[in-house]
Formats: sequence, C-alpha cells, structure tokens
Amino acid sequence: MKYAKIYKDALLDDVIPFWEQYSLDSEHSGYFTCLDSQGNVFDTDKFTWLQGRQAWMFSLLYNQVEAKSSWLNIAKSGIDFLENHAKDSDGNFYFSTSREGSALVQPYNIFSDCFAAMAFAQYAKATNDEAYSALARDTYHNILNKQHNPKGIYEKSTGNRQLKGFSLPMILSNLVLELEHILEKEEIEQTLDQCIKEITNDFLDSSLGIIRENVELDGSPSDTFQGRLINPGHGIEAMWFLIDIGVRRQDKSLIELAAKTIITTLEYSWDKEFGGIFYFMDIKGHPLLQLEWDQKLWWVHLETLVALTKAMEHIDDHRLRDWYTKVHQYSWDHFPDPKYGEWYGYLNRQGEPLLELKGGKWKGCFHVPRAMYQCWKTFERIENKQ
Amino acid sequence: MKYAKIYKDALLDDVIPFWEQYSLDSEHSGYFTCLDSQGNVFDTDKFTWLQGRQAWMFSLLYNQVEAKSSWLNIAKSGIDFLENHAKDSDGNFYFSTSREGSALVQPYNIFSDCFAAMAFAQYAKATNDEAYSALARDTYHNILNKQHNPKGIYEKSTGNRQLKGFSLPMILSNLVLELEHILEKEEIEQTLDQCIKEITNDFLDSSLGIIRENVELDGSPSDTFQGRLINPGHGIEAMWFLIDIGVRRQDKSLIELAAKTIITTLEYSWDKEFGGIFYFMDIKGHPLLQLEWDQKLWWVHLETLVALTKAMEHIDDHRLRDWYTKVHQYSWDHFPDPKYGEWYGYLNRQGEPLLELKGGKWKGCFHVPRAMYQCWKTFERIENKQ
Repeated sequence: MKYAKIYKDALLDDVIPFWEQYSLDSEHSGYFTCLDSQGNVFDTDKFTWLQGRQAWMFSLLYNQVEAKSSWLNIAKSGIDFLENHAKDSDGNFYFSTSREGSALVQPYNIFSDCFAAMAFAQYAKATNDEAYSALARDTYHNILNKQHNPKGIYEKSTGNRQLKGFSLPMILSNLVLELEHILEKEEIEQTLDQCIKEITNDFLDSSLGIIRENVELDGSPSDTFQGRLINPGHGIEAMWFLIDIGVRRQDKSLIELAAKTIITTLEYSWDKEFGGIFYFMDIKGHPLLQLEWDQKLWWVHLETLVALTKAMEHIDDHRLRDWYTKVHQYSWDHFPDPKYGEWYGYLNRQGEPLLELKGGKWKGCFHVPRAMYQCWKTFERIENKQ
Repeated sequence: MKYAKIYKDALLDDVIPFWEQYSLDSEHSGYFTCLDSQGNVFDTDKFTWLQGRQAWMFSLLYNQVEAKSSWLNIAKSGIDFLENHAKDSDGNFYFSTSREGSALVQPYNIFSDCFAAMAFAQYAKATNDEAYSALARDTYHNILNKQHNPKGIYEKSTGNRQLKGFSLPMILSNLVLELEHILEKEEIEQTLDQCIKEITNDFLDSSLGIIRENVELDGSPSDTFQGRLINPGHGIEAMWFLIDIGVRRQDKSLIELAAKTIITTLEYSWDKEFGGIFYFMDIKGHPLLQLEWDQKLWWVHLETLVALTKAMEHIDDHRLRDWYTKVHQYSWDHFPDPKYGEWYGYLNRQGEPLLELKGGKWKGCFHVPRAMYQCWKTFERIENKQ
C-alpha cells in the first residue's frame, strides 16, 4: 500500500470516528478528552489546550477535507465552550474548567491562548464569520503582549536567572501562518523573520545541530537543568514549521537546514537499545529532572513522521528515507491499538503502553489526526510525482 | 547479621561518608545535592528542602549518635546558608537559590519552610543557641499562618474546586514533635489532636483502608484526578509518624490503626509482576496524570522499612514480619550501589536505575540516612528484647 492511503484511511476510518463517537459533550458543549483505551470517559474536566485543538482539527477537516456539516457542528461545540467558559474578562484563557465550564485553573499558560486563537482562526475560515476572525486576532495580539512574561503573576522565577524558552517562538512560527487570512501581510512576515532568527541563531546549537529548550536571553547556552534540556520531539516538530515557512518563501537553504537538523536530532535521540525517540535528554548527558525522560510519546513520533515526510518532499537524501522507514515501522508497530482504535499516547522505554488511555490532560484530538492529515497530503504529492 | 547492625554500618560506613565527601560547599556554605553516581557535582543549584534536610540530618547525628565537631560544622554550613540566603524578608523560604545564594524560585512551596524549621530546631538542640530556637519557632508559626493558602500568590487554582492535601497535616504531625523542646506543651498536643483527626477521619479511606492524597474540605472523596490519587509511600510514611505519636501518648489503638493501614497499603500497591511499591496509583484504576507512576523510588521503600520496623516493635503480627522481609529484600537488592556507595533514587518498573544519580533536585541527604538511623535504633530495641 502507498503511504498516502495508509494515513488517509487511518485518519478517516479510525481516528476521527473515535473522537466523533466518544468525545462529544452534547449537554455542556466542548469535548471530553479523558478517554480510556475503549473510549470511556474517565474524567470530565476540560483542558483549554485540548478544547482549542479539537475545535481547530474539526474546522480544518471541514475546510480542507470535506464540508461535512457534522464536522462543522463538532467544531462549533468547542468554539462555543472556549468563548463562553474558557475566556476570562481580559481575554486570557483559563488552563482548565469543569465539565460545566466553571474555571478551575487560572490562565497561567499562554499556550491555552495559542490553541484558542488557532481554533477561532480556522473556524472563521469555515464560517466566514468576522466575529471569529476578530476573536482570533484579539487573542493573537494578547499573546504578543504577554510573550515576554507569559505566566504573568503566576511566574515563580525571581528573575535572577533569565532564560528564554523555545516553545513560544516555535508555536508563533506556526500560529502566524494559521492566522494568515486574518493578519496583515507585513505583520506576518515580521513575525516569521523574528521566529526564524531566534530558532536558527539562538536555540539551534550550531556545533551539535540540535535545538535547546532554553537559552540565555542573548542565545548563549546555560549550564543549568533548564539550559541543558533537550526535547527531541519539540525540536523536530519545529523543523516542519520551518519547512512550511521555507516553502512559502521559496527559501531552499531554510528547508535544507531544517532537514539537516531533523537528521542530527534523530541520530542524537534514537534509543539504540529499544528503538523509539527519547522524550527528554540532557545535552551533557547528566541525570535529568524529568522522570519520564526515557518514555516513548505518541506526539514525538508523529511529529517526526510529519517532519521527515515534508523534508523528503523537498530534499533528496537517503538518510531522510532511511529514518522515515525506521520511525514509521517503530510508530505503526507500537502506538496504534488494533482492538479499540486510535493510538496509545504513552509507552514505556520498552515500547509497551504505560497508560491505558487514548486521551487525557495532554492528549486529545490533535497530534494523531493532524499528523495523519499532513502525512497523507504530503505523500499524495510525493507519490503523484513518482 | 542482625538487622540493627546492617543499618548502623550502612549509615556510618557508607551513606554519611558519601555526603561528607561529596556534598560540602566550603566556599559558599550549604550543600551540593546534584551528585552523579560517583559523587561528582553535576549541578550547583541549591534547593531549600534539601539544604534544610541535610542540616537537620547532621544536627541529629550530632545530638543522637556522637557529638563530633565535624558533624556540627557540616550542620552549621547549611544553617548559615538557610539563614543568610534562603529566607526572604518576610520569613518565607525560597524554593531554590544559585550556589552563591541568589534567589531563583520564589517561596511558593511551604515545605521549604517546614524543612528549614526542622533544621533550626535540631540545630538549636545541638548548640543550645536560643537564636535558633527562636528562628525555628518563628518559621513554624509562619507555616501555621500560611497553612490554609500555602502557595499564596502563586496559587493557580481558582478556588472553584477546593480540596485539601494530605502533605501538610502529615508533615505537621512530625514537625511538631521535632519542635517539642521549643513549643508549649499545649500547642503541641492541640496540633497533634488536629493532625490525627484529619489523617484518620478525612484522608484515610475507611472502606479501602488507604490514604487519599486529596479530599474535599469536609473529608469526603472527590472523583477528580487529584481526588483519586494515591501515593502509597506517602501514606505509609505518615503511619510511622502516627506510631511515634501513639508511643508518646501510649495510644495502642492508634498504633494498631497505623499498622493495619501499612499492611493494607502494601497489599494495594505492591507490584506483583516486578516487585517493589508503585509510586502513584488511581483509586479507581483510571489512567494517571503522573507518567512516573510505575517507578520504584528510594524514599517510598525506605519509609516503608521504617514504618514496618516501628510497627513490628509494638504489634505482633506475622503479616508485618512477612512484609518486612519482602520489602527488605527488594530494597537492599535494588537500591544500593555496591561500587560507588549510597543508594540510587529512581528505578524503572523493572528495578533498574532510571537516573544515574545519588542526589538531585529532590533526593539529598535525608531519606536514606534518616531511615537507616530509625531502623538501626528500632531494631536495636527489638533485638535487645529477644
């Protein structure tokens, strides 16, 4: 079977039906994401990241795959929940709420806002409703206003050691393209310039060729727990964001740099004993704070498949193809659940399910279907060229 | 060999020499705790929990084992660091500082204060210096003032779901006895009454016989991630605090309840496949948020050895002896490092070292030597009776 068909079939016949069947809260709007391996709801709390991500996903399916009204209705349910329950009076997004929409955890996490903005923008495209464009734009500008102090009053650092984190420039490099139909062209290009500069100059370690999660404000390395931290899946995911930007700008050297970084990161982070990509590493090989460092996570492997696929579309390098084969085999052998559908999220180092869940506080309807959509479409282009 | 001698020898010939040799910061006072398996310092940040705990440990050795001036000097170094660098102007304790003593993480964690108070009190006993008694007393009263909002302005919960946590009443039940020579008798007894009541009425699940980590304010169970959480090591550790209180009060029924709870918790949390005690469990068997749930941690096993030893001293029950044999064998087979000394902190589910460290952000000079001291002294009494 061709790869495009594998991903298309898994997306449309397994993954999306799973979330359609089990995740909808028809009573209070929004989605249940805490689903056990069979799809049973084991907790009803709602996490704003995952509400935004699922509303985005179903809006995207409606916009890009098929204009099914059921998909738009599912998207609307999450959009309604975000708008009515997840937003505070200043336009910040709570981290979590109860099923009914009572705020539980304060807006300390700027990525809640990022995924809400993504959802509003994609939903605005689906509905041509200017109100959602405005909501996306306002949320995006609020993110920019908060970007240098994203946790606000909930920041526990004293400020005596100022490091900057990779997550925000990484997300912005993707988010700004998600809002392309809403923002001014000049604003988009300026933000992209800034993101590319920070990612390639500051976070990409030029001698090792891998991304650091945290660096000094001037981009120099920091020999601290945070400064030594490597999150291989994060670095690789960012590389497909850069490839998208490189394609948009016809910047071949940016695509080449991204492809090279994907390869270097995989060589660095592949578990030679059990297979799979480590979750966290220390750049000096020191013990980590993260007790989950050796686990194999669904999103790490899916984002790597997307990144390799996009790199292969533009760069002819056998190392990309070899790594694709290796990561594909590991991922498809270990993560999918042939019995109840969808993918396990968390495997132990040995590759066995560590948690019997399909969704939880951090895993929702996002990385699995987004990666499948991306790989399907990219392989379709690759295979049509052959 | 008798058990008392095993623990005494390990304490005095292995564990304490390890910390004496590798952890002392003679330049800036205080202790390095991030030590790799050989004892090399791999990070110099100072975590207040561990500064307090090590200063307490060396003060205790001086007070209870031998009045060696080198031990008092080591204690003093940590006391100086706590007093000069870890305390803010309101008497709260930062969570962490740089090696030199520059505050890094704000006082969001009340347990920093608890371990500082313990250290000051034990050091006051060693030195007969009223200044440290006053510091211990002030810190203790500050803890009481903060106990209903321990994170202060750093609290991220909105307050719409109010649960109470087990940690604070648990720690207080031990801390108040550590400060026995400093506080008024009436205050001690009132605090003990309150702790026993909360632990046995609210947190001990009467039908299951195990401790819940979080319950509703009125003690009823909460079917939420926090409310379903079981931390078996925590529950068992608290039981030896209760046994100490039971001994002090000659309350045999309290000792019996504690012994029963130790057994129930071990039956519930023992890993029947690989041995060892799980780190976290969900009382309904649902997937956990804690990715490290199946790991085997040093402190869990050491506190269980202490609890079983203390229970055996007072209760004649073969189940306690059987569990002691089982936990002893697992712990001594898996945690000690015969090559470089001390104990590994973190094993994977299979019982292999997950992190090659002897100390870090959370593991310092505390659970290993405290448990060895406690088991040594308790077995000495048991063996002398035989």
